[in-house]
Amino acid sequence: MSLLQLLRGAGGARGALRTCCRRGPVASRRGLSSCAGCGAGPGRRSLLAGLAGAAAALAGLGLVRRAEMVPRGPAEEDEAEDELSRRCAEFMAPPVSGLRELRSRPQDMRSRMELLIMETQSQVCRALAQVDRGGAFTVDRWERKEGGGGISCVLQDGHVFEKAGVNISVVFGHLSEEAIQQMRSRGKTLKAKNGKLPFCAMGVSSVIHPKNPHVPTIHFNYRYFEIEEADGTKQWWFGGGTDLTPTYLNEEDAVHFHKTLKEACDQHNPELYPKYKKWCDDYFYIKHRGERRGIGGIFFDDLDSPSKEEVFQFVQSCAKAIVPCYIPIVKKHSHDSFTPEEKLWQQLRRGRYVEFNLVYDRGTKFGLATPGSRIESILMSLPLTARWEYMHAPPEKSREAEILEVLRNPRDWVH
Amino acid sequence: MSLLQLLRGAGGARGALRTCCRRGPVASRRGLSSCAGCGAGPGRRSLLAGLAGAAAALAGLGLVRRAEMVPRGPAEEDEAEDELSRRCAEFMAPPVSGLRELRSRPQDMRSRMELLIMETQSQVCRALAQVDRGGAFTVDRWERKEGGGGISCVLQDGHVFEKAGVNISVVFGHLSEEAIQQMRSRGKTLKAKNGKLPFCAMGVSSVIHPKNPHVPTIHFNYRYFEIEEADGTKQWWFGGGTDLTPTYLNEEDAVHFHKTLKEACDQHNPELYPKYKKWCDDYFYIKHRGERRGIGGIFFDDLDSPSKEEVFQFVQSCAKAIVPCYIPIVKKHSHDSFTPEEKLWQQLRRGRYVEFNLVYDRGTKFGLATPGSRIESILMSLPLTARWEYMHAPPEKSREAEILEVLRNPRDWVH
Repeated sequence: MSLLQLLRGAGGARGALRTCCRRGPVASRRGLSSCAGCGAGPGRRSLLAGLAGAAAALAGLGLVRRAEMVPRGPAEEDEAEDELSRRCAEFMAPPVSGLRELRSRPQDMRSRMELLIMETQSQVCRALAQVDRGGAFTVDRWERKEGGGGISCVLQDGHVFEKAGVNISVVFGHLSEEAIQQMRSRGKTLKAKNGKLPFCAMGVSSVIHPKNPHVPTIHFNYRYFEIEEADGTKQWWFGGGTDLTPTYLNEEDAVHFHKTLKEACDQHNPELYPKYKKWCDDYFYIKHRGERRGIGGIFFDDLDSPSKEEVFQFVQSCAKAIVPCYIPIVKKHSHDSFTPEEKLWQQLRRGRYVEFNLVYDRGTKFGLATPGSRIESILMSLPLTARWEYMHAPPEKSREAEILEVLRNPRDWVH
Repeated sequence: MSLLQLLRGAGGARGALRTCCRRGPVASRRGLSSCAGCGAGPGRRSLLAGLAGAAAALAGLGLVRRAEMVPRGPAEEDEAEDELSRRCAEFMAPPVSGLRELRSRPQDMRSRMELLIMETQSQVCRALAQVDRGGAFTVDRWERKEGGGGISCVLQDGHVFEKAGVNISVVFGHLSEEAIQQMRSRGKTLKAKNGKLPFCAMGVSSVIHPKNPHVPTIHFNYRYFEIEEADGTKQWWFGGGTDLTPTYLNEEDAVHFHKTLKEACDQHNPELYPKYKKWCDDYFYIKHRGERRGIGGIFFDDLDSPSKEEVFQFVQSCAKAIVPCYIPIVKKHSHDSFTPEEKLWQQLRRGRYVEFNLVYDRGTKFGLATPGSRIESILMSLPLTARWEYMHAPPEKSREAEILEVLRNPRDWVH
């Protein structure tokens, strides 16, 4: 797989959005391709010379943080700048905030989180493109009229993946009254000034739907929120999670997935995994069906203790666990043979996925109700195809009934 | 097409529901088949001897109403019973309320509306089965623990229809606090006694998704509501509508559809069609897409004037217009050839249909949030298959762009 970020034709502006890369010729859809320069200044080919791997990029994160503690001389500043540039060159597109701004506030959590979500997007996209054996991500960089923007990476109709989307967004401005109400209903007490609350929100969000019914769907989302109250107090919190939705139960996969997440959590506190595993089972509940969407994982929200630094470190561990908890399962099953009946069952389960996302998912509902939000990025979570059969019920003791049983009564996979 | 209502094996109880007729052998799926006797006493074959057509059934309605005005002697009572029995024998299953109860209150609007929705279900199912050239309806009769029940008729994977569902439900009991709030938010002032509001609701509801992308999807729903307030006052209202969702625009079809609805409305008041046509365009709006779901039709709610009798007559005219406004369009296009690209566009439009129904449709949202409601009947409105492509946009001046333009800017089809 080539790591070259190919420059693609600049996209036309659509309303407040800049989009590009719509269905390039097939030949250019191989490998990782992006319009890194689209709407964001000159192309970045010159930066590609110093491409380092993901490990180097993570080391880069350390560098930026180290710079926080030691006053820097001019030489060090150059070095840090160079490191940040190199790190950004690995991304699917230039960061929303721009290098200049990121450099101006290297210790600020907004900068550190933006780099983490960019890095996560890049690592996951690269790993997926590699396992897809030739599928390519379309990269759209979009801007939000009210402030901020995002980068949507979508691989559609690949070899292994039916639809894989990995989005980041960094948005800021003032919260709508509806959004403030929603946060109040979640227990947050926010003091707005003349009904206005300046906010900044950023996150990485992804849903990967494979073609083969023996390869599960994964979803993950890690996000950071900052709000400035009327008296100048800043509130902040993190949220996130990673969860798996298999069409058929494979116990070994379920254990691997949960064990990898548990290990990431346990590095920080052994109480986290059990708590967030349960939260995940409770959150991804399709109430009208009496079923969970999948076999769970972890989920948390409104996380603002013990400290900003510690929560960030935890979120970073979770983000780093995505590739190792999922990619081995994809590799293991992407060549499995399957029957038309198994494909049909997958399509019915996709229907349930759509039901959860459109009826219950807080993020989707919030996004659809928020003026100026980018609908295509929000609904990227929907599968390419789905099916609804009236009164479908699998035969007793079938493999279809087996997974339904787990969705109705979640199990503990690791202890 | 045989009009015989075949008795099918009795279904097992599932929670509070009685279901049956799951995928009988192919041979028994031809023609109109139902489990008329399922959970509702003995089979009704003996009643089938005197089968009359739809016209006779409507005349029967007249008879029942005539009985209201003239005190009946024993001979007339027998005759009326016989007429009601014959009428009911035409239905897809015995009425939810049972013949004895319907006979005990022939002038009551609940009885008249229940017969109208049963008749509508039967007429539409027969017309659809005939045009499907061999597809058969599965008939499920279900009961609601809290009071009442329904009859769901579904034809799935037929020759012409991908999924056609025609449901009736007749439910009663006490409104939940949530439902009362929802009605208040619509402007209804309801005085509950200790938070309780006895209610009775009934309706016929249908979505028909054809296979051929040149045959449009139709939806209709006609319903009647009664509520008893704390002081004994009874509030009542009707709601309903019929609307069309084509994959491609055919102006002749659009005019035929709207003209037929307009004629039904005009019989009662020339102001109705323009008002309900606009209401339909406003209601079936997918806000996050800036598109209507289809090319509209009529829609109304909370209709409680000029009088119960007049509104019922209007609803009856609308219900009678369903077959003539839709079946000619189906017949005209069911043999049209189509390309894989046209089928793909249909699947994408089906995705939008799912979006509207799960995100906006008041009936669906209300149903999913109501404990004890029958999920399979509510979600019967979803298509068999649907598709979501990231950033799909049809080429300018294509036939796909043409329908999108109409969905974004509704037209007037008749004047």
